[in-house]
Amino acid sequence: MRKAKIHKFPYDVVGLGICAVDYLCRLPHYPHLDEKTELTEFSMQGGGPVPTALVTLARLGAKVSYLGKVGDDEGGRFVKESLEREGVDSHGLVVSSGDRTPRAFVWIDGSSGLRSISADRTGLRNLQPKEISQDLIASGRYLLIDGKETEAALRAARWSRQSGAEVVLDVGSRRDKMEQLLGLTDYLVVSESFALQFGETAAEEAAARFLFGFGPKVVVVTLGHKGSVCLSREGLFRQRAFTVPVVDTTGAGDVFHGAFLYGLLRDWKLRRTVRFASAVAAIKCGKMGGQVGIPTLVQTEEFLSGH
Amino acid sequence: MRKAKIHKFPYDVVGLGICAVDYLCRLPHYPHLDEKTELTEFSMQGGGPVPTALVTLARLGAKVSYLGKVGDDEGGRFVKESLEREGVDSHGLVVSSGDRTPRAFVWIDGSSGLRSISADRTGLRNLQPKEISQDLIASGRYLLIDGKETEAALRAARWSRQSGAEVVLDVGSRRDKMEQLLGLTDYLVVSESFALQFGETAAEEAAARFLFGFGPKVVVVTLGHKGSVCLSREGLFRQRAFTVPVVDTTGAGDVFHGAFLYGLLRDWKLRRTVRFASAVAAIKCGKMGGQVGIPTLVQTEEFLSGH
Repeated sequence: MRKAKIHKFPYDVVGLGICAVDYLCRLPHYPHLDEKTELTEFSMQGGGPVPTALVTLARLGAKVSYLGKVGDDEGGRFVKESLEREGVDSHGLVVSSGDRTPRAFVWIDGSSGLRSISADRTGLRNLQPKEISQDLIASGRYLLIDGKETEAALRAARWSRQSGAEVVLDVGSRRDKMEQLLGLTDYLVVSESFALQFGETAAEEAAARFLFGFGPKVVVVTLGHKGSVCLSREGLFRQRAFTVPVVDTTGAGDVFHGAFLYGLLRDWKLRRTVRFASAVAAIKCGKMGGQVGIPTLVQTEEFLSGH
Repeated sequence: MRKAKIHKFPYDVVGLGICAVDYLCRLPHYPHLDEKTELTEFSMQGGGPVPTALVTLARLGAKVSYLGKVGDDEGGRFVKESLEREGVDSHGLVVSSGDRTPRAFVWIDGSSGLRSISADRTGLRNLQPKEISQDLIASGRYLLIDGKETEAALRAARWSRQSGAEVVLDVGSRRDKMEQLLGLTDYLVVSESFALQFGETAAEEAAARFLFGFGPKVVVVTLGHKGSVCLSREGLFRQRAFTVPVVDTTGAGDVFHGAFLYGLLRDWKLRRTVRFASAVAAIKCGKMGGQVGIPTLVQTEEFLSGH
């Protein structure tokens, strides 16, 4: 068992992972192959799983810092400015000379609000473990990592555990060293598609149990409009999704992560935390893009009191 | 009957229509709705039907000028620079203050080379007839117009006819005043999807005959990998498509227009012109994007001599 050191963390959450500039296109319908469409609405927003979760935390009132990498281009400046505007500290952001900041092209089906994403990470080198600061990592009460900056995430997760912090992992597709990452994870929150693929099963509860076997103390599998499944030593429960008008589901999972971490910071019980995270993610879907629609704490409490 | 004035035109072709910055994403496969993919190759190129046709003409050796509108943004500068690099005159380009240059997001299926396009024209006002110069329009032996800048195109087509020039129309979807545009058109070159939709038929030859009834002296319907159909007073003929390895079909129709105009400039017979245009369009498909793969005259002649 790790012993939690008793000291004050400068940040509630430090997040490490990829970022992106999201190019969001709202379309009359999702085009079939070889079709031309004219979009009805366009928006450019900061994106990426960890940055979007951190923006969620900042909007809810938490103190957060982001550690990641951008190119020395317009996209990189856009990412930095949008984090700072949201109150997300970015002094650990690494600007990689000659590289291109990742982009995600998002095509949103106007009728269902579902989206498809083409992500471009071909122009940026990975974050290296030597590029991250142990001081910054150790300054967070929680560490949020994704599965894409694997080497840096492994180093950071070890440092966080040494400093008595807990680790939350968001992972979307199978990568090298996944088992090592899972072994360093306290809270695993993943999408249904990853859980089923990784667990090689069609049953979400079986997938959650399989992932639980790798060591996390809590596993949450998010199921989109079907809600989520949460498994811990106290057992398994399901949270339904809130029924809301959906404009765009982009970033809903990322926002769920941020709001879930907020519940951890408040020491809420798991059920309350998962219900809260579901609400924040649902509200976000009312606006186009991953970040614009993220609510404040007051807005979320109002929403929850009406549901 | 119009009387062709005998005077030298400063430009072989003047083109008027929309432009765009193309964001090209090559994907392992075309994603279904609600799927995330990582692209394998990214490219940013100048795009738009008329600009791409003009770049084709320039690369083949013709003297061309472009008349269109961009925003006062990075995209607008990119469009202007890429035209100038290709030797396309752009002194008639209108820079619209506060507007956003159109973009097209192109998702290319890595296995078939077929693509889908989401075009963003929400941030730019249309080109107004008062924004175009009669002198510039009258300086082209041919005028190439698209169906999207309708008011400006109608004005320009009338001026061109007054100056003894001929009008080539490229149109991709039904618009207001389409009949007026068709009535001012000498050469109509359109895609199968437009021809079938406009002609309300499933038969391409019937669609060509229907379009011919609006006044053009030549109608060409391009059919992708099935080749093309060409109808004139001398009758109808078909041109097969050349069999080539396809990386990306983006812009193939636009390139066909440019190469078709090149045949008109050389006073070639229709059959030779259409075969030449098919070859140039086919060669283009060997590279990603609408413009990078456009061949020179020598490259096209080499290709044709081997087929």
